[in-house]
Amino acid sequence: MMKIHDISLTVAPGMVVWPGDPAVELYRVAKIEEGANANVSHMHLGVHTGTHVDAPYHFLNDGSKVETLALDALIGPAQVVAVDETVNLLDAAVLQAAGIAEGIERVLFKTRNSRYWQRGEAVFQTDFVAIPADGAAYLVERGIRLVGVDYLSVAPFKNSRPTHEILLKAGMVLLEGVDLSEVSAGFYDLYCLPMKLLGSDGAPARTVLIEK
Amino acid sequence: MMKIHDISLTVAPGMVVWPGDPAVELYRVAKIEEGANANVSHMHLGVHTGTHVDAPYHFLNDGSKVETLALDALIGPAQVVAVDETVNLLDAAVLQAAGIAEGIERVLFKTRNSRYWQRGEAVFQTDFVAIPADGAAYLVERGIRLVGVDYLSVAPFKNSRPTHEILLKAGMVLLEGVDLSEVSAGFYDLYCLPMKLLGSDGAPARTVLIEK
Repeated sequence: MMKIHDISLTVAPGMVVWPGDPAVELYRVAKIEEGANANVSHMHLGVHTGTHVDAPYHFLNDGSKVETLALDALIGPAQVVAVDETVNLLDAAVLQAAGIAEGIERVLFKTRNSRYWQRGEAVFQTDFVAIPADGAAYLVERGIRLVGVDYLSVAPFKNSRPTHEILLKAGMVLLEGVDLSEVSAGFYDLYCLPMKLLGSDGAPARTVLIEK
Repeated sequence: MMKIHDISLTVAPGMVVWPGDPAVELYRVAKIEEGANANVSHMHLGVHTGTHVDAPYHFLNDGSKVETLALDALIGPAQVVAVDETVNLLDAAVLQAAGIAEGIERVLFKTRNSRYWQRGEAVFQTDFVAIPADGAAYLVERGIRLVGVDYLSVAPFKNSRPTHEILLKAGMVLLEGVDLSEVSAGFYDLYCLPMKLLGSDGAPARTVLIEK
């Protein structure tokens, strides 16, 4: 019996979103208890809400868009790399020492960020652990095709462009906002399936890790 | 090298939606060419848009909601069953003759509906092939946990409740709006990953079939 770990955030009104993104709206427009044939809901949200992917177009006007992201990057063997809770930046030195396996193409970093989800932190955190430019360059050099982080951006707050540019120019898929609090470091099969939103800069992506 | 078949519809403004559902809105609110740091889009849509799943709560007020659908129903071995293009109803007789494999728990029906997607039909079709009540009862009897159909409802137009009620009361996951036009009948591994929308009656679900 395979074990499936859901590392996706629940999308709900009131959830933490990136500053400036709209609050999630999710509401029933037809209600059985009021005589409707069925319950039917609508939603309004930013495409970078909750667990989501960034497409190159998010930071590069000539970059490819989310519906064209390669499924063979989004699906396949992945390593969850845990870093010490004292780590604040996933820079090149930290990443070199982190034990990323030879030949692995998908890597997810479990940091102290996952505690924000675990404890249901209701306020946006600005001091989240992220990847600075030299860490991004290191991941490109290592041939990583998909990188996952456990807060809402791969890049440090107020310094998004360098990291995003380096990773997205290399065609890396950026998976942001995974909750790794219940997952151990190690090797899994990743299934990250973003909404197929035409021409979009990003998309919500239900994401699971399957134990080998 | 595994072969991944994307059977999801592209979500885009102007796409066909269920009558009464809102037109898809997907629009950039921040544009690099106008000086923004990044391209950022928002969306407004019904939760039953494009390739999506129904939760029991869609038709049953005491039914479970979409974020609780079992991942081990959404993921696993599946059979794509092709029926003749002359078939208009997937009733019990048709299903009995369709060759659903013994022990299979996920079944997707490829019908003439898939041609609507293939030819980019821009108008909602009311004469789509669907499952009447006796077909639904047969699927329950067969122990099916997930059923997929290639138009926007499992049930015939203007007669949604009986089929949905029978299937959803049995706890079956309903996967609606898959495009099977490029997929052959046979056996695959299904990965259907709906957005984890809190308390919702349904959710868009990027869905792939992987060739064994």
